[in-house]
Formats: sequence, structure tokens, C-alpha cells
Amino acid sequence: MSRSLAPGLVTPADVLELDFAGKPVSNVGAQLFVERFIHAEIYRARPDVNAIVHSHSPSVLPFTLVPSARLRPICHTCGFLDGLAPPFDVADHAGPANDLLIRNAELGCKFAAHLGSRAVALLRGHGFAAVGASVPNAVFRAIYTARNCDIQLAAMRLGEPIYLSSPEAVACEEAILAQASRAWMLWLSQIQAETSQWVS
Amino acid sequence: MSRSLAPGLVTPADVLELDFAGKPVSNVGAQLFVERFIHAEIYRARPDVNAIVHSHSPSVLPFTLVPSARLRPICHTCGFLDGLAPPFDVADHAGPANDLLIRNAELGCKFAAHLGSRAVALLRGHGFAAVGASVPNAVFRAIYTARNCDIQLAAMRLGEPIYLSSPEAVACEEAILAQASRAWMLWLSQIQAETSQWVS
Amino acid sequence: MSRSLAPGLVTPADVLELDFAGKPVSNVGAQLFVERFIHAEIYRARPDVNAIVHSHSPSVLPFTLVPSARLRPICHTCGFLDGLAPPFDVADHAGPANDLLIRNAELGCKFAAHLGSRAVALLRGHGFAAVGASVPNAVFRAIYTARNCDIQLAAMRLGEPIYLSSPEAVACEEAILAQASRAWMLWLSQIQAETSQWVS
Amino acid sequence: MSRSLAPGLVTPADVLELDFAGKPVSNVGAQLFVERFIHAEIYRARPDVNAIVHSHSPSVLPFTLVPSARLRPICHTCGFLDGLAPPFDVADHAGPANDLLIRNAELGCKFAAHLGSRAVALLRGHGFAAVGASVPNAVFRAIYTARNCDIQLAAMRLGEPIYLSSPEAVACEEAILAQASRAWMLWLSQIQAETSQWVS
Repeated sequence: MSRSLAPGLVTPADVLELDFAGKPVSNVGAQLFVERFIHAEIYRARPDVNAIVHSHSPSVLPFTLVPSARLRPICHTCGFLDGLAPPFDVADHAGPANDLLIRNAELGCKFAAHLGSRAVALLRGHGFAAVGASVPNAVFRAIYTARNCDIQLAAMRLGEPIYLSSPEAVACEEAILAQASRAWMLWLSQIQAETSQWVS
Repeated sequence: MSRSLAPGLVTPADVLELDFAGKPVSNVGAQLFVERFIHAEIYRARPDVNAIVHSHSPSVLPFTLVPSARLRPICHTCGFLDGLAPPFDVADHAGPANDLLIRNAELGCKFAAHLGSRAVALLRGHGFAAVGASVPNAVFRAIYTARNCDIQLAAMRLGEPIYLSSPEAVACEEAILAQASRAWMLWLSQIQAETSQWVS
Repeated sequence: MSRSLAPGLVTPADVLELDFAGKPVSNVGAQLFVERFIHAEIYRARPDVNAIVHSHSPSVLPFTLVPSARLRPICHTCGFLDGLAPPFDVADHAGPANDLLIRNAELGCKFAAHLGSRAVALLRGHGFAAVGASVPNAVFRAIYTARNCDIQLAAMRLGEPIYLSSPEAVACEEAILAQASRAWMLWLSQIQAETSQWVS
Repeated sequence: MSRSLAPGLVTPADVLELDFAGKPVSNVGAQLFVERFIHAEIYRARPDVNAIVHSHSPSVLPFTLVPSARLRPICHTCGFLDGLAPPFDVADHAGPANDLLIRNAELGCKFAAHLGSRAVALLRGHGFAAVGASVPNAVFRAIYTARNCDIQLAAMRLGEPIYLSSPEAVACEEAILAQASRAWMLWLSQIQAETSQWVS
């Protein structure tokens, strides 16, 4: 991951290599993200994961805040949301004066356990993490988690929506994985048009 | 239609000719859209249709998800939505482990029958198709279907809206067809400004 | 006003002079806006009006559609909305197969009477007209009508909002008129940046 | 602050120095913001404040309008909203024909007292002021006040949200202050990209 920098400003020179303890292997001395333990502990627990997106998307936040509400897969691009757990709440582990951050290895380990074998985990009052086998896969899941939230919130205004059943979610996810490069190529092209800069 | 590619990336070289069975006549060997059967079977069933837009618009999705809610024409640009059928649900035809896609000719044929002689058909958890006598006509209907959904959802927050009556819908559609090139010329101009590329 | 053309495409050469009957004085033969009678009849009835904006803003449409809902001035920039009439409904004057358009002088005249001495009039299922003593004044009112609708709709989700009282609306309108050039200069600058073209 | 000008148009030459009475020390004769008394009186009352943002954000307006609704900190970036007072209403001090503006030193003084030692104060039907120890700090608070409103309004549609407890708000604010330059650097970069002009 990068040193502590807004993602829109990251250049290749800002990318650091960290070990599983969240200590820098390269570029020692740079300011680090407080929450690098999200990444370190998920990579430790999930050898199948090669990319993690951590986001504060305002579309997703509401679904981390209301105990009675459940984010559920609602459209054919979001099968990966099936079986999502309720939000992880730092207050349950770090006490009443916590700052809602995954700021050490212990919290990172608990958050990774909460994620389990799923693709996404929510974090109360803070955001979520989406994981994938590749950068395009994790980015797709992060973007479509937010999209699913927007659609679900709007649909709930009309009445009780039909969610994907678990068999549908599995079939949808398989179909989407076969086509996911289509969206990724568009996003790359948009970023290149906006920044005219280096894009991995 | 194009080979399997995000619409924003399509260039003239990516456009394929397909037969009514969804098999490529030109550019054989390119990766194809799974859902080309939507297009093939509607063209087969509707000689009056010369263009089809298939969209996943987040504005429209909510209206495909809630059985008790009906998308209805609400403003003078949307008369073509009169008499819309309830959403087509792939689960009714492809069983409980379906992936919500129109992935073969049989489903395409059923979806085309569901569309009937209308301008738009909704697809549960997935999106919709809008058809027209020309590319500008189908694009206009796709864009204004989404616009109608946004307005209807907002109006329903205020109370029970007045929808277009069927005679109004017919009169509105006739009036709009006489003026539709106004919007099309603007959209062309916006795309040209954004892409400075080839636009049909 | 211009010949029938999307506003974003209008250049000085497209501007027409029309008489009070909606007949072109200059540029005879160009295609005209069907609804030029909105403009002609308001100018005839209101010598104080020197500019009219007719808009289909999706923010405003919901407030034209629900008989029990009333658009009311809610913030200090929108005093001009005080005492707004319920929406004008073409169906009340042109019968059940009407197309919601002000398509002749008779409807234009009735719509102008409905507007009365106010700054804004709503049109069911269609949009609204905002009038002013100058182009900047009418544009300001059109933009802030839409803004007021967005805020009112959101506030109504929280409970019953405090609207401007009539004395507050009068005082706010007076204060705003003294400062309105501030917004106008910004909008001009934004349009110039976007189009790098001629702006009046 | 600048002379009376839309913020997007301000250049270094437009910046004025004012005394605590709101009288210009430099650039005498320029048109002044009516509401400069917000700034003057807060600076007088709060020696810890070095920057003030006054905003009409449509995201925040709803929370100034509904007496039963309370804006409360809901996510880890918004601890500074803890203990927010109900909106200040100019009508309580300037009578029924007020224009909702802080247009003199007396109202500015009362508004500053209403703000007290907090970071933000709401103004009924008008907007809010956010203060900080520095320009980046005040801008961060203004932007995240609006963000908090968006998230809170959406979360309230799902049910009763979990807000930050006061100890959490304190801990979050401390954590955020240590990282706030990350967002500021991004915003500077975005403004520079948009304007290619002078940025402080």
C-alpha cells in the first residue's frame, strides 16, 4: 500500500512494502496509514486475497449504522455480498473511548476473523473493506458494494425488495467473474483520461 | 452491437454484425456479450425496432425489485411508459439457481414476448431494455425511463402523484416524437466534447 | 428566445425575435419552440418581466405532481416563492387527451393569468416558469426554485420544517436582490470555462 | 475575507483585511459581505479560532429547519460535531420581518455566543459556520459537516442509527487531527487542477 496519502495523489514512488506486522520493508521512515493492520491481518488470514480496498463510501455508511438494517445482494453484479455479517464495531473490542479505527494488530486480527471467508466486511461508523483475488476484483467489489447500497436504500422506499437468493448469488458471482475485465478496462481508461498519469 | 466491451470504450472497429441466432457474421472470434439474445430475439419479434438499449441504470433498478411498486409515466416526456408490464424475472423461467441473465435464445424469446409491443421492459434485479425505431429514439427512451424513475420515487415521498392518463400518454408521445432531435443533438455534442472521438 | 434547440447548443445566430402572437419577426422559417406561447403571453401580461426561464428540472417535478404537497420558501435565498399557487394543469383547460404542453395562445394566456404577479408558476407533470426583471434575476429564481425543492424534500424526511413567514420572505427577497450579481458572475464564469464560447 | 464575491472567483487582490467591527482596513471602498459580522464577532470571542467557513450547503439546510431533528456525529471523521446546539434563529432576535442574515454586530455577537466553544453552529433556513485553528481545519469541518448530514439522513431512512458517544467523539477528533493534512492536500490538488490558478 502507499504511505499515508490520499489515494488520488499516490504515485509509484509512494508505494510501500509492509510486512505482516505492518512494519515497512521499503521506504522506511515514511508516515504510515494508521489502519495498515486491516491489510496486514487480512493478508495473513487469507492467502487467497491479493488486494484489499478500504473505503469510507457515504453510500455504504448508513448500512453500518443501523442494527436492524441488513445490506443484502440485490442485483446481478453483487452476488459477492451474500451472507454478509453485521457490522464490526470497534467499541465491542476497544472500549467506550475508542476512535473507531483498526489501529493495532489485535483489532486487525479480530476484524479479519469477522470477515472470515467473505468478500466484504462492514465497520460501524467508518466504512468497509472489500477483498479479492486481484486488484480489479477487489475494486469491482468495492464499487458495486456502494452501488448495491444505493439501489437497496431506494428500493426500500418502494416496499420490500426481492433480494438475490443464495443460489442466485452464487450463479451471479460466477457469471460476473467471467466478465469483470469489461468494467476494469473502462475505469482504467477514465482514470487515465482524468489524470494523464501513471496507472497500474 | 459491439463485441463485449464497456460502451464508453467502443470504437467503429468493435462493432459486430450478428444474425438472429446471436452468431457473429462479421469479426468472427471476438468475445461476445452474453446477453446478445435480448437484442437478437427482440429484433426477430419486432420488425419495427431498429435500435435497442440495454441498461443497468441504478435509477431504474428499484422499480424492478419491489412487486407492489409500478413504474408509471409521470411527465410529458415519458408517454412511452404507458402500460408497462411488471418486471420479467429470469427465476420464473430458469429455475432457482439462475444468474439473472438472458443468456440463451429461449430466455431471449420469452423476454421479447414479455416486451410485446411496448417500448420498455424491466428485468428483475438487473435492468431494462428500451427499444425504438431509431438509435436516437431508443436512447431517448432509455434516458427518460431513468429520469421518470427518479421523479416518481421523489414524488412518492410527497404523497400519491398524478400519473399520465393513457390518452395523455399517447398525446405526449406524439408531441415528443416531433421534437426528439433537440435532445439527441445535445447528447451528441456532449459526447463529442467529452471524447473528441468518433460518434455515429 | 432561440429557435427550437437545446439551450446548451444555442449561439447568437439562433436567437429569434418573436411578436406577442409567437410569430417570428426575425429569422423567419426556423423551427420554433411549441411552447413559445408561455413567453409571449407572460410578456404581454407582465410589463415588469424582461426574462423568462422555462425548465423541466427533476428537482421541481415532484412538487407539480402531488396535490397535497406545497412548495414553500424554506431558505433565505428563496423569498420569491412566497404565496406560490398550486400547479397549473393543462388537463383542466385542454381536456383529457392533452399533451401537457402550452401549445397555443389560449393556454399561454391562461397560464399567464395563473402566474399572476408572482415570480414562479408550476406546470403539472412538466416543469415550471420563473420570471424576472432581468436575465440574471430570472435565472437566479429558476436555479433557486430547484434548490428549494431539494432542501424541502430532504427536510420533510426529518419532520415538519419551518418555512419562511411572509414578512421574512419579503425581507429575504429584498436582501437577495441587493446581492444577486454575486451568483450571476460565478455562473457566467463557469459557463465560459465550460464552453469557451459566446456568453451574453 | 474577500470583498463580496463568489468564493470561486476570489483572487489574492480581492482579499480584504477587516477590523473587529467589520470595517475594512485595506482596500477601503470595495463592496463588503453583509454577513462579515459572523466572522468579526467569532474572531473577537474566540482567540483560538484562525479560520471560519460560512456555508449554505444544501446537505446541511434540512438540519437547520426541523426543530425535532438533531444533527449528531455519526462517523469517525465527525467527532467535532459532538454537543452541537440547536439552530440559531435570527427571528428570535431580529423580529418577525427579519431576513435571516447576520447583518450587524449585535446579531454577530449573539451568534458567536450561541456557537460558544464548539466547532460548528447552525443557522435556521440559511446555513452554518464552521471554525478551526487553521484554514485546513475549518475547511475539513465544513466539508465533513455536510458529509455527516448526508449519511445521517440516509441512515435515518433505515432505522435509528448508532451515533458517536461523547468519549468516541473526543477520541475520533484527536485521531483525525493527526491525519487531516491528507484530505487537505487532495483538495488543494483538485482545486489546482480545476483552476490552474493561485491557491493559498
